[in-house]
Amino acid sequence: MFPYAAPVRDMNFVLSELLSHESLSLPAFSDISPDLVDAVLEEAAKLASDVWAPLNASGDRQGCTRRDDGGVTLPDGFIEAYRAYAEGGWNGIGVSAELGGQGLPEVVATSVQEMLHGANMALGLCPMLTAGAIEALAHHGSDGQKALYLDKLIEGSWTGTMNLTEPQAGSDLSRVRTRAIPCEAVEGDFYRIFGQKIFITWGEHDASDNIVHLVLARTPDAPEGNKGISLFLVPKLLVNPDGSLGERNDVVCASIEHKMGIHGSPTCTLSFGEKEGAIGFLVGELGRGLNHMFTMMNEARHKVGVQGIGVAERACQHAFSYAAERSQGRMPNTRGGEPCVIAEHLDVRRMLLSMRARTDALRALALYCAALLDVARHHADEDQRRSAQARVDVLIPVVKGFSTDQAVDIASLGIQVHGGMGYIEETGAAQLLRDVRISAIYEGTNGIQALDLAGRKLQMDDARTMSSLLDEVKATAAQMKDSPDLALLAEELAAGAEDLRVCVAKVLEEGRDSQSGQDAVQAYATPLLSLAGHVLCAWQMGRAALQAQQAVDAGSDDDFYRRKLTSADFAIRQWLPVGRAQRQVIEAGMQCLAAFTVTRES
Amino acid sequence: MFPYAAPVRDMNFVLSELLSHESLSLPAFSDISPDLVDAVLEEAAKLASDVWAPLNASGDRQGCTRRDDGGVTLPDGFIEAYRAYAEGGWNGIGVSAELGGQGLPEVVATSVQEMLHGANMALGLCPMLTAGAIEALAHHGSDGQKALYLDKLIEGSWTGTMNLTEPQAGSDLSRVRTRAIPCEAVEGDFYRIFGQKIFITWGEHDASDNIVHLVLARTPDAPEGNKGISLFLVPKLLVNPDGSLGERNDVVCASIEHKMGIHGSPTCTLSFGEKEGAIGFLVGELGRGLNHMFTMMNEARHKVGVQGIGVAERACQHAFSYAAERSQGRMPNTRGGEPCVIAEHLDVRRMLLSMRARTDALRALALYCAALLDVARHHADEDQRRSAQARVDVLIPVVKGFSTDQAVDIASLGIQVHGGMGYIEETGAAQLLRDVRISAIYEGTNGIQALDLAGRKLQMDDARTMSSLLDEVKATAAQMKDSPDLALLAEELAAGAEDLRVCVAKVLEEGRDSQSGQDAVQAYATPLLSLAGHVLCAWQMGRAALQAQQAVDAGSDDDFYRRKLTSADFAIRQWLPVGRAQRQVIEAGMQCLAAFTVTRES
Repeated sequence: MFPYAAPVRDMNFVLSELLSHESLSLPAFSDISPDLVDAVLEEAAKLASDVWAPLNASGDRQGCTRRDDGGVTLPDGFIEAYRAYAEGGWNGIGVSAELGGQGLPEVVATSVQEMLHGANMALGLCPMLTAGAIEALAHHGSDGQKALYLDKLIEGSWTGTMNLTEPQAGSDLSRVRTRAIPCEAVEGDFYRIFGQKIFITWGEHDASDNIVHLVLARTPDAPEGNKGISLFLVPKLLVNPDGSLGERNDVVCASIEHKMGIHGSPTCTLSFGEKEGAIGFLVGELGRGLNHMFTMMNEARHKVGVQGIGVAERACQHAFSYAAERSQGRMPNTRGGEPCVIAEHLDVRRMLLSMRARTDALRALALYCAALLDVARHHADEDQRRSAQARVDVLIPVVKGFSTDQAVDIASLGIQVHGGMGYIEETGAAQLLRDVRISAIYEGTNGIQALDLAGRKLQMDDARTMSSLLDEVKATAAQMKDSPDLALLAEELAAGAEDLRVCVAKVLEEGRDSQSGQDAVQAYATPLLSLAGHVLCAWQMGRAALQAQQAVDAGSDDDFYRRKLTSADFAIRQWLPVGRAQRQVIEAGMQCLAAFTVTRES
Repeated sequence: MFPYAAPVRDMNFVLSELLSHESLSLPAFSDISPDLVDAVLEEAAKLASDVWAPLNASGDRQGCTRRDDGGVTLPDGFIEAYRAYAEGGWNGIGVSAELGGQGLPEVVATSVQEMLHGANMALGLCPMLTAGAIEALAHHGSDGQKALYLDKLIEGSWTGTMNLTEPQAGSDLSRVRTRAIPCEAVEGDFYRIFGQKIFITWGEHDASDNIVHLVLARTPDAPEGNKGISLFLVPKLLVNPDGSLGERNDVVCASIEHKMGIHGSPTCTLSFGEKEGAIGFLVGELGRGLNHMFTMMNEARHKVGVQGIGVAERACQHAFSYAAERSQGRMPNTRGGEPCVIAEHLDVRRMLLSMRARTDALRALALYCAALLDVARHHADEDQRRSAQARVDVLIPVVKGFSTDQAVDIASLGIQVHGGMGYIEETGAAQLLRDVRISAIYEGTNGIQALDLAGRKLQMDDARTMSSLLDEVKATAAQMKDSPDLALLAEELAAGAEDLRVCVAKVLEEGRDSQSGQDAVQAYATPLLSLAGHVLCAWQMGRAALQAQQAVDAGSDDDFYRRKLTSADFAIRQWLPVGRAQRQVIEAGMQCLAAFTVTRES
């Protein structure tokens, strides 16, 4: 298994050269210098590469086991690695200083997340879920709840979970049946929770002193559907008013799942209320549980996209390492005819460059989105905040859906580079595919992401935000046109932007039809998301190319910039065209999907 | 886990309506009627669905274990399932009657293979490898070897293996180091084999009475490279002149691999000559081992493509079953607004139709190729045989490379249809991806297939055979144009054919360059294979559409034909465009690949 090296230089390129460290100009970050950012990334890289990454393969092999006492044993070393992370203060880096976090910009937190997921995705899920719980409580918790729970969650001595899914309620959470019975008349200001939740990530473990479950449940007499669902906080161990830990709550891990990957992450079925009912506290308003969840879902979805990118980066590194040392075949005669490593074969190089170019592009887009999150949260001007948030809203489903779809493909290509060795588990390439495959499914399947983009985010403002993004894409293309070396790229990028504009217009128009509108949005959602992902990623690589070309023109002989130019060339001229084909797919219409009735047998 | 139902109707559609049972008009099959073919398929379907398929999941879970005595224990039921297959006479169905087989056409044997791999790919590998050994001996074995080994292999009481790979010799077999020391002066007319082979499929097991290993090895003083390699027959148990089994040969299973999938197939490291040297018999000519291997490799590659299609079919069936019964979300208001199964959502239907259309198309192409194999072997006219063989040669890398690449994607989409359940191993969808992933790697990685197409098969005759295929594609498109319902499809198909023509010409031309020719072929090989696969598959679906439209126009109300029309519509108008984008990829040139030097770190 090849080691993992956090891609600090690549991240710095995006943060400083593509994003010009814009986040640092926000008032909230006035005391943060680029040097500090560098230092943070270097430190995080050590944690990721030295502490987390070495446990990735053993965690997969060993997996988690549920003990007879209902507890879950994590793979060897996971508790220590988690504690090293928490004690290093990493859990709070993206949390604002007012809440007790370190208040670093989202662009920095995102970079650190990418490293950690690249190092050990199964372990990275634990803080990822905790971050969701922190968000939920910070936005919707009462002062008392914040006082009791937030500090512990932010310092990482307690972890958090999201309890949404039930067997009959997956993508469709309106079907949640878990019950929450109010007890104020009898017992106190809380609810008793009864029900079963499945697919609960890090639902039970001993890495933290307590686990704070956030649970969607339905109160008695609540209306059917979404509006009957509320959000509850259910601690594993009850918390005394002074913050000390009390009795065990009535929630147990009934089983853990046998999954394709992320074996080091305990995916639990949790039973609430097998005895007297689990004690739960209402978070936010009654009946607004789904809304409260969705507040944080945007950011959780961004994190899943970043997770995909982390694994894609690791797949690149494995493939490059292997290709650079595996000797097989010979150079073409004109290049010497000698035995050579497989990286010399242009067919293998195509795979490597495709992996690298796409990973570069996905990272640039995810960090661009993170920078917008910083503006949306912290800019002094409300209009600026609002327009940044609008862009974030449009970009999130792309970052989540497109990055993870691509990451699955990149990980699969990583196996392919290894040939037969890639299929052997000890090599480590297969694990990356098995692990990352879930990222296209959870936190809203990528189909749900596509519907979110086509059905919600674009419709919300008649695609005005997307149009403004496309104007920037075209402006970048125009700028590239002035550079002779980038003229061909400029043309392709502009054409891609135009394809996306046309398709967005079509989806909006057909989506308005009172008869077939909903079907149209469904039918076109996935190709539209793919097209948008390709165009926006190509745009980022266009910006990277401008930057790199400038450095080269200024006389830089840093190979880094020439590699970025190559990466951009591939992304725009050899990857974008495949995405642009989605325009034909959309223009082919939805008739054949509508005509295709499905039976079990067909 | 959903059951598997062999797709007999779909196969019959291809055999009887697309291929008009042409194979049955060959003299070798004069006594075989369409009814007999039907009966064979129905019987095979029973074996596949009732005997093999139920062991697929348990075989994956249980896997194979190497015992301390060096033997390998197969998953429960595998021995019995293999014996049911052998005793049913299935092992010989594709083997000619002269050799003692049942002499059924390759189109029929291929259909049966697809069923068996769809039912249980890990088990299907055992007869697949045996078929290779039969081919090798039938073509290159001495009369004595044929007499001793062929009958047993054909009846399936012995199985065969292919021993090619060594740690340093994978795609590049010229690096084989296993030694074969001639003993005729001292011991007898055989060789002593010393060396280690890896990745030997079904290299050790107790399902058969004996195992016949075919081994590539190098004789002393043989020239370096390919021409020093010969092919040897090394039986696990030595065979006495009367055919009875003798002593154990000096070959042992040193270990079995821990793989991503096909856990029910024992992938062995075999050690030859740990003691006195394994006794091996030269097959064919000295120094022509690789050539002899390649004789049968074409057909083995066809089989691997078919294997991919079998798993893709099963993935379709799982996904359709799940989507037709999983209730989640609601109908659009205009369709009632009621809770509905996910197959009602057009986004899910896009996934299902994409899986189905591609599987239909891949099957049609693989069976078209099988029909050409029948002609190439059995037609009375030599010109006909030769031109069919030329087409087979061009099609094989497409059937192998494109079918398996697509099968990987189809299996992954099958997981996606299942949402979170798809990631849980018990569901069975993940196993299909884990299993089929190897098909894109073994029997020549898909990169090797692409090089075979672009670098060998097209160059051999200046792409004349491909041109003649493209003429047929265009003729089909012209025919479709006459049918108003197929006119749009016709246009797209013709455009795809033109793209392929242009790209083939470019690859041929740049490939001729004495400086950069070899690099050019490498650079364009994979996109060219993808384009060729899309166009040829779309062609088959065009032919299917013509057939189905004819039936509908003639008044058929069989839903089967309407589904085929939908499948063809999707394949040609929503899948082919993605493939056509490979023209842009090829036209983007190879500069960025050439410029992209690879280091371990990059």
